[in-house]
Amino acid sequence: MSKLLDQAVAELAKLPGIGKRTALRLAIHLLRREKDEVALLAESLQRFRNEVRYCRHCNNLSDQEICPICADPRRDRTTVCVVEYVKDVISIENTRQYHGMYHVLGGIISPMQGISPSDLKIDLLLENIARGEISEVILALSTSVEGETTSFYITRRLADCAGIRVSSLARGIGFGDELDYADELTIAHALHNRTLIGQ
Amino acid sequence: MSKLLDQAVAELAKLPGIGKRTALRLAIHLLRREKDEVALLAESLQRFRNEVRYCRHCNNLSDQEICPICADPRRDRTTVCVVEYVKDVISIENTRQYHGMYHVLGGIISPMQGISPSDLKIDLLLENIARGEISEVILALSTSVEGETTSFYITRRLADCAGIRVSSLARGIGFGDELDYADELTIAHALHNRTLIGQ
Repeated sequence: MSKLLDQAVAELAKLPGIGKRTALRLAIHLLRREKDEVALLAESLQRFRNEVRYCRHCNNLSDQEICPICADPRRDRTTVCVVEYVKDVISIENTRQYHGMYHVLGGIISPMQGISPSDLKIDLLLENIARGEISEVILALSTSVEGETTSFYITRRLADCAGIRVSSLARGIGFGDELDYADELTIAHALHNRTLIGQ
Repeated sequence: MSKLLDQAVAELAKLPGIGKRTALRLAIHLLRREKDEVALLAESLQRFRNEVRYCRHCNNLSDQEICPICADPRRDRTTVCVVEYVKDVISIENTRQYHGMYHVLGGIISPMQGISPSDLKIDLLLENIARGEISEVILALSTSVEGETTSFYITRRLADCAGIRVSSLARGIGFGDELDYADELTIAHALHNRTLIGQ
């Protein structure tokens, strides 16, 4: 019907979670927007892809060589929180409860998907730790087998570094979660590690 | 963290049905794609918005002044199917059962949303009909009150045109639909207009 429409739909449908039908709806929606607005969308996607970089220290996304978190003198340089992806940094930053540094691995060890330790920024983490400022490593990885494997691998590699505390995020029932929807492993763990709240 | 990321996410989140979280996931996904691919996405959206036109005859989307359907000499010029939006044309074309022309109104009459007949391409439809080739008008509009209103309005305006048959899409139980999920109006209508399948 319209090759321009077909092409816009085909390109949108390549995005994850966006099927042909949604892509068509999005494309048609663009017609109702000003040309300038669509140009801004197109340019912001392209600029992001072309210009964004990875922080030389922590592998976080950054517009500069060093990300704003690593460059911020007010952050606590003795603690580093190890995460899989950039989105995890955003999730933790949104809590406004953490004031240390981050380290973005870029994934987790997954033999099934052919991701080995050398594909991740683990050496960079060890280099940063070797510099001597860090005293605690918080492993904030997935609770999956791959996450546990990665945590185990990093913990083992850190065994040589004297005086480094390694912790992981507390497991338990999430706030607002229903007990009957939580899995058995979580409930068992939450029971075993119960918190004393009175005498 | 990264202004480039923030901007890409903000722009993506302006699309309908895409929240901040999905926008972030889409933006991060773009980093895994080649720069050329992201450029192609960006350009196709912008080209679509800037270059696509509306067919002078039927108001369908088109790359040319006249859309491929209106320009196709094999289509039956005696029948016109009136739809609300471009996506409806695509839905009907996908059936490969219809070989007539289309007319895209661009919406339906909706006093609630301030859409009056003059906001729609109804005059253009009547001009096309006045040219004398069309003998049947199929109204393929929503089953909503607005759709019924629009159908009624068009039917009334067509009353002056002698020899024009006006029809609407058959209502009934859809193929694959469960009877107990169909609404009462649909079931009542399907019962009343039952189809004889044997003696």
